[in-house]
Amino acid sequence: MAENGVHRASTFAPVNIAVIKYWGKRDTKLNLPTNGSISVTLSQDDLRTHTTATASPSYTEDSLELNGSPQDISGARTQACLRELRELRAKVEMGAPQAAKLSQMKLKIVSQNNFPTAAGLASSAAGFAALVRAIADLYQLGTSPTDLSRIARQGSGSACRSLMGGYVAWQKGEEADGSDSVAYEVSPASHWPDMRALILVASAEKKDVSSTAGMQQTVASSALFEHRASEVVPKRMKRMEQAIHRRDFEEFAILSMKDSNNFHACCLDTQPPIFYMNDTSRAAIRMVEAINSAQPDDKPIAAYTFDAGPNAVIYYLTENEDKVAGTFKSILGDVTGWDNKRGQSLSATGGAVESIDSVAAEVLKKGISRVILTSVGDGPRKTEEHLA
Amino acid sequence: MAENGVHRASTFAPVNIAVIKYWGKRDTKLNLPTNGSISVTLSQDDLRTHTTATASPSYTEDSLELNGSPQDISGARTQACLRELRELRAKVEMGAPQAAKLSQMKLKIVSQNNFPTAAGLASSAAGFAALVRAIADLYQLGTSPTDLSRIARQGSGSACRSLMGGYVAWQKGEEADGSDSVAYEVSPASHWPDMRALILVASAEKKDVSSTAGMQQTVASSALFEHRASEVVPKRMKRMEQAIHRRDFEEFAILSMKDSNNFHACCLDTQPPIFYMNDTSRAAIRMVEAINSAQPDDKPIAAYTFDAGPNAVIYYLTENEDKVAGTFKSILGDVTGWDNKRGQSLSATGGAVESIDSVAAEVLKKGISRVILTSVGDGPRKTEEHLA
Repeated sequence: MAENGVHRASTFAPVNIAVIKYWGKRDTKLNLPTNGSISVTLSQDDLRTHTTATASPSYTEDSLELNGSPQDISGARTQACLRELRELRAKVEMGAPQAAKLSQMKLKIVSQNNFPTAAGLASSAAGFAALVRAIADLYQLGTSPTDLSRIARQGSGSACRSLMGGYVAWQKGEEADGSDSVAYEVSPASHWPDMRALILVASAEKKDVSSTAGMQQTVASSALFEHRASEVVPKRMKRMEQAIHRRDFEEFAILSMKDSNNFHACCLDTQPPIFYMNDTSRAAIRMVEAINSAQPDDKPIAAYTFDAGPNAVIYYLTENEDKVAGTFKSILGDVTGWDNKRGQSLSATGGAVESIDSVAAEVLKKGISRVILTSVGDGPRKTEEHLA
Repeated sequence: MAENGVHRASTFAPVNIAVIKYWGKRDTKLNLPTNGSISVTLSQDDLRTHTTATASPSYTEDSLELNGSPQDISGARTQACLRELRELRAKVEMGAPQAAKLSQMKLKIVSQNNFPTAAGLASSAAGFAALVRAIADLYQLGTSPTDLSRIARQGSGSACRSLMGGYVAWQKGEEADGSDSVAYEVSPASHWPDMRALILVASAEKKDVSSTAGMQQTVASSALFEHRASEVVPKRMKRMEQAIHRRDFEEFAILSMKDSNNFHACCLDTQPPIFYMNDTSRAAIRMVEAINSAQPDDKPIAAYTFDAGPNAVIYYLTENEDKVAGTFKSILGDVTGWDNKRGQSLSATGGAVESIDSVAAEVLKKGISRVILTSVGDGPRKTEEHLA
């Protein structure tokens, strides 16, 4: 760990995509949400942040570099994470006087995403999860993922869910200090390992409104949002947890699609209205609906969800890979992203759908620039690959 | 009135565009709404249905022709209107034994719209209002517009608001038989005559879901809709009536835009989701926002509203015609619809906005096929121009 007085630790951390959405804070300083949320942690084979944290007495200031570019580390959110981690390290040092005084050294944090930042994927969640996890490992804190989630939440709300693998809930919590607003594992990835995700990355378009600003505009101005936060989501949280426990894809799919639409409805009900979905997103929805309608028993085999942007994330089970991802490959076979093992073995016959809506297909072809084929995955992984 | 035993009457009836939206029925047979609504009646100089109703002992069946094509008249809604009007006529005949027995003759109804049906404007409202008004005149019923609105409502809900001019409310009503679910005048057109409307007609695209089917899907599946109907709209109805009484355009504009968005939010929250607005609609919203933001005191001078389709209707006052309609003319000057007196005198300098968002302008140019420049107007007008 220590060479020439330099101490370091590295980690990979995953992206997560919510199926019950986080939108709205009851405390903007502590990132306390107005409602709980549930997400699926995606495989780090496809999407991950790699972070190395180094402490050295020779450093004169804390620094953070992402994908080769220096980042501002002075923001209150990053500072809150560093402060809490240093306090925990200071306690360790008090109990073990021979331990290196890392809490008093400056930190150098180097991060890399293995996916294009421009893709508009929720990179801040993986980024803060990796930062907190790497520093916790460097400090040898032995803190539980749930306790670390409380720290990561202050960096970026949804980051708390990236500290665990599989199916993860972030409970709203009741305490004013946020002590009970933490993530917990609903089920590990191994409980329901055949969950797949196809991400349709929409062509670059300037984001309508940042999610940080947008969610507070919704809280302040939507006539529907309070009803969502207090009535709609709490019921869905319980049902979604049960659906995951039972591996009930039909219920998982219906709740995911409804909650995505409900969240975007509250964005539209904001003054001025916020639009994250565009005509391309709508075409993706229509295609998922067509795939589901073509099922003989009318049970959904695909579920769309949209974060604060036009990208579609489509969940499905391995057994339906040809029907779901294969249908999209038959339309979008020319874009990048089908060249991994899973994508190459896919038939692109448009399996599930008798006749593809040619208008929707045209809109998708124009609007989607790449796809990412991935699956449910584990939580952060320690690594000995260090970034310089 | 009677020549060779043929009795006839003709009327013009206006289109109305709601600013507090009707969406959802509590009784689908009687067209009783889940919430009240308020609309502006538009000028018949620009948009109107012209209808002639004829009764003759020689007719062997009721018939309806619209724009030269025979229409099915057997639907329950049309039949309900005819039945109620005939019952009223039968009472007249009982009281005046020498009166022609029109209630026992078949009817021939001929209608023409002076606007393209394909434009996706609310033609059924004007159509049913004209049908009811023309037959009531033919029957010499002397029934009040409010009583006729109760009949027209059964043909098409929003038609009840086209039986009056100016600013019109349709009260939800409480009675199970619909007897109190009628339209009333909030203020006549003469109270606030300088209200203008610019309609941006979107290029033909198949309508997502018919409004008749769509609204009941929303009632059945949206988690937000009940809150809209029971909490949000009743408060807005009161505030909108007051805004009209006070001629308070700022309040009128904010409520109109919020309610349009709130209605479309409930459509999006429907399962499966209903999208009436598209990327063109969003560009129109952004342009209205830019016009309003450019006002020195930040008070809105333009208000958008969208019915069950992508067309934008933009309300503004005459004093701001150059700033609002002129800005749109500077972008959309090449499409048809600027060639009336009002449109020709408009400067197309983009008056209000310092620099026009080029992306939004491009989307508008591609997506808008014509404009209609109009204003608040009066209720149905009797005419001696008869359609053959």
